[in-house]
Amino acid sequence: MNYELIIIGGGPAGITAGIYAARQKIKTLLITKDFGGQLGRKAVAIENYTGFEKISGSDLIKKFTEHLKKQAIEIKIDEVKKIEKVGDDFLVNTKNKDTFKAKAVIVASGADPRPLEIPGEKEFLGRGVSYCTTCDAPLFANKTVAVIGGGNAGFEAAIALAQWAKKIYILEYSDKIAADLENQERAQQTGKVEVILNAQAKNIKGGKMVETLTYQNRQTQEEINLAVDGVFIEIGTQPATSFVKGLVEFNEKDEIKVDPFSGETSTPGLFAAGDADNVPYKQIVVAVGEGAKAALSAVNYLRKISSKKI
Amino acid sequence: MNYELIIIGGGPAGITAGIYAARQKIKTLLITKDFGGQLGRKAVAIENYTGFEKISGSDLIKKFTEHLKKQAIEIKIDEVKKIEKVGDDFLVNTKNKDTFKAKAVIVASGADPRPLEIPGEKEFLGRGVSYCTTCDAPLFANKTVAVIGGGNAGFEAAIALAQWAKKIYILEYSDKIAADLENQERAQQTGKVEVILNAQAKNIKGGKMVETLTYQNRQTQEEINLAVDGVFIEIGTQPATSFVKGLVEFNEKDEIKVDPFSGETSTPGLFAAGDADNVPYKQIVVAVGEGAKAALSAVNYLRKISSKKI
Repeated sequence: MNYELIIIGGGPAGITAGIYAARQKIKTLLITKDFGGQLGRKAVAIENYTGFEKISGSDLIKKFTEHLKKQAIEIKIDEVKKIEKVGDDFLVNTKNKDTFKAKAVIVASGADPRPLEIPGEKEFLGRGVSYCTTCDAPLFANKTVAVIGGGNAGFEAAIALAQWAKKIYILEYSDKIAADLENQERAQQTGKVEVILNAQAKNIKGGKMVETLTYQNRQTQEEINLAVDGVFIEIGTQPATSFVKGLVEFNEKDEIKVDPFSGETSTPGLFAAGDADNVPYKQIVVAVGEGAKAALSAVNYLRKISSKKI
Repeated sequence: MNYELIIIGGGPAGITAGIYAARQKIKTLLITKDFGGQLGRKAVAIENYTGFEKISGSDLIKKFTEHLKKQAIEIKIDEVKKIEKVGDDFLVNTKNKDTFKAKAVIVASGADPRPLEIPGEKEFLGRGVSYCTTCDAPLFANKTVAVIGGGNAGFEAAIALAQWAKKIYILEYSDKIAADLENQERAQQTGKVEVILNAQAKNIKGGKMVETLTYQNRQTQEEINLAVDGVFIEIGTQPATSFVKGLVEFNEKDEIKVDPFSGETSTPGLFAAGDADNVPYKQIVVAVGEGAKAALSAVNYLRKISSKKI
């Protein structure tokens, strides 16, 4: 199937790109695994998307998605596996074995949680191991859990978990807490959170469900077993860009390098926006702005190549 | 009075910068002439701010302003006349003869309507001449008006005026209409709009109120008098940056040149965001993103200079 533009991603950047492209009457397909991207994994309410004093991630996704669906745009729930450029065309191949063709592509595929890569992590995923506090916190009522990562994401996960769990360990690799003071204070106020510094997670064990998390004290080298029912991994994200590897220039973090004035990349006709690109501030307000820029630049590109052919 | 950060401007960029700076517990003053910036002059509803399918400019300003006012931030309604840098400090001088001091400044002063600069324009301002359809359209019920400018802003003004006025001329300087097809169709549907191409506005005359607009046909050189009760000027905007002229590098349009990754300018400690800067896409979603970037960059700058002093 042929389009003028294919947008990959259903988070703030992809949705905004979709709204802008559709309003410019561009024949557009938006492909996404799900709507909301990392918004769906936010453990606390959003208070910094201008115009909404306080809104949950899921409510904001709902508003964004409704706005998108009012536009003249096609949407497919699917996962992009590979993009090739053949002549002037991009061929977008998906997990459902479809191939879609377009003259321009916007990659707004966001970022995925970064895995720990320790034994037991994959095996116990969904059986005590989680990357999504919002999704899974209620499963741990009156249980003991560990959060890996002492940054804001880790502390926000712990604060959210404190509504359910009876005890929460936060394991931080370094000798310092990186989270904001505000998050540290809120975690302390729960009376349920214990922070362990210099802790390197080593493995996760259990039977049917998680039973033990083993970590090493990086100063004493001692290995310690924590009896826990759940392990929430909050050590950051990695850009979801593997499907364009080799097609476009990345930085050292595998983010797509863009011209931040326009969202253009090293590949003509390929644009990027949101957490998949190398704009440093990973914020919802920034992502919507980058999505609009990428769409308007793609529209200009499409007009330029179509006028060339006349 | 001393602050860590002064933000100049109360449009989408300045408001978002204020929300972000306050949430980082930076001692911040926001100075603005009024709230909303160009949003307040939007003649049609906004349909491309992600999360709001359709909202009037004034309602969106209200939501933005309420969000800002929930933060720990000082706000002054005043106009900045000049900024000087003395050592590491910025001195911000206002129309009300106040001087405020800060270590960092974000210029988010937006853009003002561009004047025609023809005889009668200044004299009849508020007596038939207007730069703000939203504000003034209801004054022209059953009257005849001219809109100068055949771009989207001009057509949107005409569409809004058609609810009140009995007849609207759109005067376009070039031989082509620059507005979107959608706006052209909507203007035509009103049955009240007449487009005049190749028209150079020459002067505005009247008694107590506007009575005549004279334009020259740029092909025949003929001068034509239109009997009109109002003249709406919609020929674009100019950045409101004169108060930092000489302090920071501009481009040829008098926009402040920024690093679009960060909002940094050529002057350390001075940041810019929104329509005052040289990011090409002048959109609300883009402005909020740039405002957040400038605020987070200013926070980093303030932390760096304060740690240097320890």
